[in-house]
Amino acid sequence: VPTMRADARRNLDAVVEAARTVFAEQGVDAPVRAIAAEAGVGVGTLYRHFPQRADLVVAVFTQAVDACAAEAPRYAAELAPGEALAAWLRRFLGFVATKRGLAGALHSGDPSYAALPDYFLGHLGPALAELYDAAVAAGEAKPGYEPRQLLTAVANLAHSDPSGTMVDLLIEGLRTAR
Amino acid sequence: VPTMRADARRNLDAVVEAARTVFAEQGVDAPVRAIAAEAGVGVGTLYRHFPQRADLVVAVFTQAVDACAAEAPRYAAELAPGEALAAWLRRFLGFVATKRGLAGALHSGDPSYAALPDYFLGHLGPALAELYDAAVAAGEAKPGYEPRQLLTAVANLAHSDPSGTMVDLLIEGLRTAR
Repeated sequence: VPTMRADARRNLDAVVEAARTVFAEQGVDAPVRAIAAEAGVGVGTLYRHFPQRADLVVAVFTQAVDACAAEAPRYAAELAPGEALAAWLRRFLGFVATKRGLAGALHSGDPSYAALPDYFLGHLGPALAELYDAAVAAGEAKPGYEPRQLLTAVANLAHSDPSGTMVDLLIEGLRTAR
Repeated sequence: VPTMRADARRNLDAVVEAARTVFAEQGVDAPVRAIAAEAGVGVGTLYRHFPQRADLVVAVFTQAVDACAAEAPRYAAELAPGEALAAWLRRFLGFVATKRGLAGALHSGDPSYAALPDYFLGHLGPALAELYDAAVAAGEAKPGYEPRQLLTAVANLAHSDPSGTMVDLLIEGLRTAR
Protein backbone atom coordinates (compact mmCIF):
# COMPACT_ATOMS: atom_id res chain seq x y z
CA VAL A 1 0.00 0.00 0.00
CA PRO A 2 2.58 2.53 -1.16
CA THR A 3 0.60 5.81 -0.86
CA MET A 4 -0.91 5.09 2.55
CA ARG A 5 -0.60 7.91 5.08
CA ALA A 6 1.69 7.25 8.03
CA ASP A 7 -1.10 7.14 10.63
CA ALA A 8 -3.19 4.80 8.48
CA ARG A 9 -0.14 2.55 8.09
CA ARG A 10 0.35 2.58 11.85
CA ASN A 11 -3.28 1.60 12.39
CA LEU A 12 -3.01 -1.20 9.88
CA ASP A 13 0.15 -2.58 11.49
CA ALA A 14 -1.46 -2.33 14.93
CA VAL A 15 -4.53 -4.24 13.74
CA VAL A 16 -2.46 -7.05 12.22
CA GLU A 17 -0.36 -7.29 15.35
CA ALA A 18 -3.50 -7.29 17.52
CA ALA A 19 -5.11 -9.95 15.35
CA ARG A 20 -2.01 -12.13 15.67
CA THR A 21 -2.18 -11.85 19.47
CA VAL A 22 -5.93 -12.38 19.73
CA PHE A 23 -5.98 -15.30 17.26
CA ALA A 24 -3.17 -16.95 19.24
CA GLU A 25 -5.10 -16.55 22.50
CA GLN A 26 -8.70 -17.11 21.40
CA GLY A 27 -8.49 -18.78 17.99
CA VAL A 28 -9.37 -17.34 14.61
CA ASP A 29 -13.06 -17.04 15.46
CA ALA A 30 -12.33 -14.43 18.13
CA PRO A 31 -14.69 -11.40 18.08
CA VAL A 32 -13.58 -8.57 15.79
CA ARG A 33 -14.37 -6.24 18.69
CA ALA A 34 -11.61 -7.88 20.77
CA ILE A 35 -9.09 -7.31 17.98
CA ALA A 36 -10.08 -3.65 17.56
CA ALA A 37 -9.79 -3.12 21.33
CA GLU A 38 -6.36 -4.79 21.45
CA ALA A 39 -5.23 -2.58 18.55
CA GLY A 40 -6.69 0.60 20.10
CA VAL A 41 -8.74 1.40 16.99
CA GLY A 42 -12.45 1.53 16.31
CA VAL A 43 -14.29 -1.40 14.81
CA GLY A 44 -15.07 0.82 11.79
CA THR A 45 -11.38 1.38 11.16
CA LEU A 46 -10.74 -2.34 11.39
CA TYR A 47 -13.49 -3.14 8.89
CA ARG A 48 -12.24 -0.42 6.53
CA HIS A 49 -8.85 -2.16 6.28
CA PHE A 50 -10.14 -5.73 6.55
CA PRO A 51 -13.72 -6.10 5.30
CA GLN A 52 -13.66 -9.89 5.82
CA ARG A 53 -12.20 -11.96 8.63
CA ALA A 54 -10.29 -13.90 5.97
CA ASP A 55 -8.48 -10.65 5.05
CA LEU A 56 -7.17 -10.46 8.60
CA VAL A 57 -6.10 -14.10 8.64
CA VAL A 58 -4.25 -13.60 5.36
CA ALA A 59 -2.57 -10.47 6.73
CA VAL A 60 -1.43 -12.23 9.91
CA PHE A 61 -0.11 -15.19 7.95
CA THR A 62 1.76 -13.17 5.32
CA GLN A 63 3.15 -10.83 7.99
CA ALA A 64 4.51 -13.85 9.87
CA VAL A 65 6.04 -15.25 6.67
CA ASP A 66 7.63 -11.91 5.84
CA ALA A 67 9.06 -11.48 9.34
CA CYS A 68 10.56 -14.96 9.27
CA ALA A 69 12.03 -14.54 5.77
CA ALA A 70 13.50 -11.17 6.75
CA GLU A 71 15.59 -12.80 9.49
CA ALA A 72 17.57 -14.88 6.99
CA PRO A 73 19.86 -12.13 5.66
CA ARG A 74 20.28 -10.79 9.19
CA TYR A 75 21.47 -14.17 10.48
CA ALA A 76 23.68 -14.59 7.40
CA ALA A 77 25.38 -11.29 8.16
CA GLU A 78 25.88 -11.95 11.87
CA LEU A 79 26.67 -15.66 12.23
CA ALA A 80 28.90 -18.34 10.71
CA PRO A 81 27.08 -20.15 7.88
CA GLY A 82 26.21 -23.32 9.84
CA GLU A 83 25.10 -21.29 12.85
CA ALA A 84 22.98 -19.00 10.68
CA LEU A 85 21.26 -22.01 9.12
CA ALA A 86 20.56 -23.53 12.54
CA ALA A 87 19.38 -20.25 14.05
CA TRP A 88 16.98 -19.61 11.20
CA LEU A 89 15.49 -23.12 11.30
CA ARG A 90 14.81 -22.59 15.02
CA ARG A 91 13.29 -19.19 14.19
CA PHE A 92 11.09 -20.93 11.64
CA LEU A 93 9.61 -22.93 14.54
CA GLY A 94 8.14 -19.68 15.82
CA PHE A 95 6.47 -19.16 12.48
CA VAL A 96 5.06 -22.69 12.61
CA ALA A 97 3.42 -21.89 15.96
CA THR A 98 1.67 -18.91 14.32
CA LYS A 99 0.64 -21.13 11.46
CA ARG A 100 -0.85 -23.67 13.86
CA GLY A 101 -3.03 -20.98 15.43
CA LEU A 102 -4.41 -20.28 11.98
CA ALA A 103 -4.69 -23.91 10.93
CA GLY A 104 -8.44 -24.13 11.42
CA ALA A 105 -8.98 -21.27 9.00
CA LEU A 106 -6.23 -22.26 6.55
CA HIS A 107 -7.62 -25.79 6.17
CA SER A 108 -11.24 -24.66 5.93
CA GLY A 109 -11.22 -24.79 2.13
CA ASP A 110 -12.05 -21.06 1.97
CA PRO A 111 -10.69 -19.90 -1.43
CA SER A 112 -9.36 -16.74 0.26
CA TYR A 113 -6.54 -18.89 1.55
CA ALA A 114 -5.74 -20.79 -1.64
CA ALA A 115 -2.66 -18.66 -2.43
CA LEU A 116 -1.06 -18.95 1.03
CA PRO A 117 0.87 -22.20 0.57
CA ASP A 118 2.56 -20.69 -2.50
CA TYR A 119 3.25 -17.50 -0.58
CA PHE A 120 4.78 -19.55 2.21
CA LEU A 121 7.04 -21.62 -0.05
CA GLY A 122 7.79 -18.71 -2.34
CA HIS A 123 9.18 -16.61 0.51
CA LEU A 124 10.55 -19.08 3.06
CA GLY A 125 11.99 -21.50 0.48
CA PRO A 126 14.41 -18.93 -1.01
CA ALA A 127 15.24 -17.53 2.45
CA LEU A 128 16.29 -20.98 3.61
CA ALA A 129 17.97 -21.86 0.31
CA GLU A 130 20.36 -18.93 0.67
CA LEU A 131 21.39 -19.96 4.20
CA TYR A 132 21.58 -23.64 3.32
CA ASP A 133 23.65 -23.09 0.16
CA ALA A 134 26.08 -20.88 2.10
CA ALA A 135 26.42 -23.51 4.83
CA VAL A 136 27.02 -26.25 2.24
CA ALA A 137 29.59 -24.09 0.44
CA ALA A 138 31.39 -23.53 3.75
CA GLY A 139 31.43 -27.29 4.48
CA GLU A 140 29.09 -26.73 7.42
CA ALA A 141 26.04 -28.62 6.15
CA LYS A 142 25.44 -31.77 4.13
CA PRO A 143 24.65 -31.13 0.46
CA GLY A 144 21.72 -32.57 -1.46
CA TYR A 145 18.61 -31.50 0.44
CA GLU A 146 15.74 -29.39 -0.82
CA PRO A 147 14.65 -26.32 1.18
CA ARG A 148 11.02 -27.40 0.82
CA GLN A 149 11.86 -30.83 2.28
CA LEU A 150 13.61 -29.23 5.27
CA LEU A 151 10.78 -26.75 5.91
CA THR A 152 8.23 -29.56 5.85
CA ALA A 153 10.34 -31.72 8.15
CA VAL A 154 10.71 -28.95 10.74
CA ALA A 155 7.00 -28.15 10.54
CA ASN A 156 6.07 -31.82 11.00
CA LEU A 157 8.43 -32.23 13.96
CA ALA A 158 7.14 -29.05 15.58
CA HIS A 159 3.68 -30.57 15.57
CA SER A 160 4.49 -32.77 18.58
CA ASP A 161 7.61 -30.93 19.79
CA PRO A 162 7.03 -27.17 19.95
CA SER A 163 10.11 -26.77 22.17
CA GLY A 164 12.30 -27.84 19.26
CA THR A 165 14.22 -30.69 20.91
CA MET A 166 13.72 -32.95 17.91
CA VAL A 167 14.29 -30.12 15.45
CA ASP A 168 17.67 -29.59 17.10
CA LEU A 169 18.55 -33.24 16.43
CA LEU A 170 17.57 -32.83 12.78
CA ILE A 171 19.67 -29.67 12.53
CA GLU A 172 22.65 -31.41 14.08
CA GLY A 173 22.26 -34.25 11.60
CA LEU A 174 22.17 -31.74 8.77
CA ARG A 175 25.30 -30.01 10.05
CA THR A 176 27.28 -33.19 10.62
CA ALA A 177 29.99 -33.61 8.00
CA ARG A 178 29.15 -36.49 5.67
CA VAL B 1 -4.25 -69.01 21.21
CA PRO B 2 -2.14 -71.77 22.75
CA THR B 3 -4.28 -74.80 22.00
CA MET B 4 -5.05 -73.94 18.38
CA ARG B 5 -4.41 -76.72 15.90
CA ALA B 6 -1.55 -76.15 13.48
CA ASP B 7 -3.77 -75.84 10.40
CA ALA B 8 -6.09 -73.39 12.15
CA ARG B 9 -3.06 -71.35 13.21
CA ARG B 10 -1.81 -71.35 9.60
CA ASN B 11 -5.21 -70.16 8.41
CA LEU B 12 -5.28 -67.39 10.98
CA ASP B 13 -1.78 -66.20 10.06
CA ALA B 14 -2.68 -66.33 6.38
CA VAL B 15 -5.80 -64.23 6.95
CA VAL B 16 -3.91 -61.55 8.92
CA GLU B 17 -1.20 -61.46 6.25
CA ALA B 18 -3.86 -61.24 3.51
CA ALA B 19 -5.70 -58.48 5.38
CA ARG B 20 -2.46 -56.52 5.69
CA THR B 21 -1.90 -56.78 1.93
CA VAL B 22 -5.48 -56.02 0.91
CA PHE B 23 -5.84 -53.12 3.38
CA ALA B 24 -2.61 -51.63 2.01
CA GLU B 25 -3.86 -51.92 -1.56
CA GLN B 26 -7.56 -51.14 -1.19
CA GLY B 27 -7.94 -49.49 2.20
CA VAL B 28 -9.57 -50.87 5.34
CA ASP B 29 -13.02 -50.95 3.74
CA ALA B 30 -11.93 -53.60 1.24
CA PRO B 31 -14.43 -56.48 0.77
CA VAL B 32 -13.97 -59.38 3.18
CA ARG B 33 -14.31 -61.65 0.15
CA ALA B 34 -11.09 -60.17 -1.29
CA ILE B 35 -9.21 -60.89 1.93
CA ALA B 36 -10.49 -64.46 2.09
CA ALA B 37 -9.48 -65.01 -1.54
CA GLU B 38 -6.01 -63.56 -0.94
CA ALA B 39 -5.61 -65.84 2.09
CA GLY B 40 -6.90 -68.92 0.24
CA VAL B 41 -9.60 -69.60 2.82
CA GLY B 42 -13.37 -69.50 2.74
CA VAL B 43 -15.30 -66.46 3.91
CA GLY B 44 -16.80 -68.65 6.67
CA THR B 45 -13.34 -69.45 8.00
CA LEU B 46 -12.45 -65.78 7.98
CA TYR B 47 -15.58 -64.80 9.90
CA ARG B 48 -15.00 -67.61 12.42
CA HIS B 49 -11.62 -66.08 13.34
CA PHE B 50 -12.63 -62.43 12.91
CA PRO B 51 -16.36 -61.84 13.42
CA GLN B 52 -15.98 -58.06 12.98
CA ARG B 53 -13.85 -56.07 10.56
CA ALA B 54 -12.39 -54.25 13.58
CA ASP B 55 -11.01 -57.61 14.80
CA LEU B 56 -9.02 -57.88 11.57
CA VAL B 57 -7.74 -54.30 11.79
CA VAL B 58 -6.62 -54.90 15.38
CA ALA B 59 -4.90 -58.15 14.34
CA VAL B 60 -3.05 -56.45 11.48
CA PHE B 61 -1.96 -53.57 13.70
CA THR B 62 -0.78 -55.68 16.64
CA GLN B 63 0.98 -58.11 14.29
CA ALA B 64 2.88 -55.16 12.77
CA VAL B 65 3.80 -53.85 16.23
CA ASP B 66 4.97 -57.31 17.33
CA ALA B 67 7.06 -57.81 14.17
CA CYS B 68 8.73 -54.42 14.61
CA ALA B 69 9.42 -54.92 18.33
CA ALA B 70 10.84 -58.39 17.64
CA GLU B 71 13.55 -56.89 15.40
CA ALA B 72 15.09 -54.93 18.29
CA PRO B 73 16.89 -57.83 20.04
CA ARG B 74 17.93 -59.20 16.65
CA TYR B 75 19.58 -55.90 15.67
CA ALA B 76 21.12 -55.61 19.14
CA ALA B 77 22.73 -59.03 18.71
CA GLU B 78 24.00 -58.41 15.19
CA LEU B 79 25.09 -54.76 15.06
CA ALA B 80 27.14 -52.23 17.01
CA PRO B 81 24.88 -50.29 19.42
CA GLY B 82 24.66 -47.09 17.35
CA GLU B 83 24.05 -49.06 14.16
CA ALA B 84 21.39 -51.20 15.83
CA LEU B 85 19.58 -48.07 17.03
CA ALA B 86 19.70 -46.52 13.55
CA ALA B 87 18.63 -49.72 11.80
CA TRP B 88 15.68 -50.19 14.10
CA LEU B 89 14.45 -46.59 13.73
CA ARG B 90 14.52 -47.10 9.95
CA ARG B 91 12.67 -50.39 10.41
CA PHE B 92 10.09 -48.50 12.47
CA LEU B 93 9.38 -46.42 9.36
CA GLY B 94 8.00 -49.58 7.76
CA PHE B 95 5.64 -49.98 10.67
CA VAL B 96 4.52 -46.37 10.30
CA ALA B 97 3.54 -47.10 6.70
CA THR B 98 1.32 -49.95 7.90
CA LYS B 99 -0.16 -47.68 10.50
CA ARG B 100 -0.95 -45.05 7.89
CA GLY B 101 -2.92 -47.61 5.85
CA LEU B 102 -5.03 -48.25 8.93
CA ALA B 103 -5.31 -44.60 9.98
CA GLY B 104 -8.87 -44.17 8.73
CA ALA B 105 -10.05 -46.99 10.96
CA LEU B 106 -7.81 -46.17 13.92
CA HIS B 107 -9.04 -42.58 14.07
CA SER B 108 -12.70 -43.49 13.56
CA GLY B 109 -13.44 -43.36 17.30
CA ASP B 110 -14.50 -47.02 17.23
CA PRO B 111 -13.93 -48.27 20.82
CA SER B 112 -12.48 -51.50 19.38
CA TYR B 113 -9.32 -49.49 18.72
CA ALA B 114 -9.08 -47.65 22.04
CA ALA B 115 -6.35 -49.95 23.41
CA LEU B 116 -4.07 -49.76 20.36
CA PRO B 117 -2.07 -46.61 21.24
CA ASP B 118 -1.14 -48.21 24.57
CA TYR B 119 -0.27 -51.45 22.79
CA PHE B 120 1.92 -49.48 20.39
CA LEU B 121 3.79 -47.54 23.09
CA GLY B 122 3.89 -50.51 25.46
CA HIS B 123 5.69 -52.68 22.93
CA LEU B 124 7.70 -50.30 20.75
CA GLY B 125 8.73 -47.97 23.58
CA PRO B 126 10.62 -50.67 25.52
CA ALA B 127 12.07 -52.13 22.28
CA LEU B 128 13.53 -48.75 21.39
CA ALA B 129 14.56 -47.97 24.98
CA GLU B 130 16.76 -51.05 25.08
CA LEU B 131 18.56 -50.10 21.85
CA TYR B 132 18.81 -46.44 22.80
CA ASP B 133 20.16 -47.11 26.31
CA ALA B 134 22.77 -49.48 24.89
CA ALA B 135 23.83 -46.88 22.31
CA VAL B 136 24.07 -44.17 24.99
CA ALA B 137 26.06 -46.51 27.26
CA ALA B 138 28.47 -47.17 24.37
CA GLY B 139 28.88 -43.44 23.72
CA GLU B 140 27.18 -43.87 20.34
CA ALA B 141 24.06 -41.77 20.99
CA LYS B 142 23.28 -38.58 22.87
CA PRO B 143 21.70 -39.15 26.29
CA GLY B 144 18.54 -37.52 27.58
CA TYR B 145 15.82 -38.39 25.08
CA GLU B 146 12.62 -40.31 25.70
CA PRO B 147 11.78 -43.32 23.49
CA ARG B 148 8.23 -41.99 23.10
CA GLN B 149 9.56 -38.64 21.86
CA LEU B 150 11.79 -40.35 19.29
CA LEU B 151 9.00 -42.64 18.08
CA THR B 152 6.67 -39.68 17.63
CA ALA B 153 9.34 -37.66 15.83
CA VAL B 154 10.06 -40.46 13.35
CA ALA B 155 6.35 -41.02 12.78
CA ASN B 156 5.77 -37.30 12.17
CA LEU B 157 8.70 -37.07 9.76
CA ALA B 158 7.58 -40.18 7.89
CA HIS B 159 4.29 -38.43 7.19
CA SER B 160 5.86 -36.31 4.43
CA ASP B 161 9.02 -38.34 3.88
CA PRO B 162 8.26 -42.07 3.57
CA SER B 163 11.70 -42.67 2.03
CA GLY B 164 13.31 -41.73 5.33
CA THR B 165 15.70 -39.02 4.14
CA MET B 166 14.74 -36.70 6.98
CA VAL B 167 14.60 -39.55 9.49
CA ASP B 168 18.21 -40.31 8.57
CA LEU B 169 19.17 -36.73 9.44
CA LEU B 170 17.44 -37.04 12.79
CA ILE B 171 19.23 -40.33 13.45
CA GLU B 172 22.57 -38.79 12.55
CA GLY B 173 21.86 -35.92 14.93
CA LEU B 174 21.03 -38.42 17.65
CA ARG B 175 24.22 -40.39 17.04
CA THR B 176 26.49 -37.35 16.93
CA ALA B 177 28.64 -37.11 20.06
CA ARG B 178 27.53 -34.19 22.22
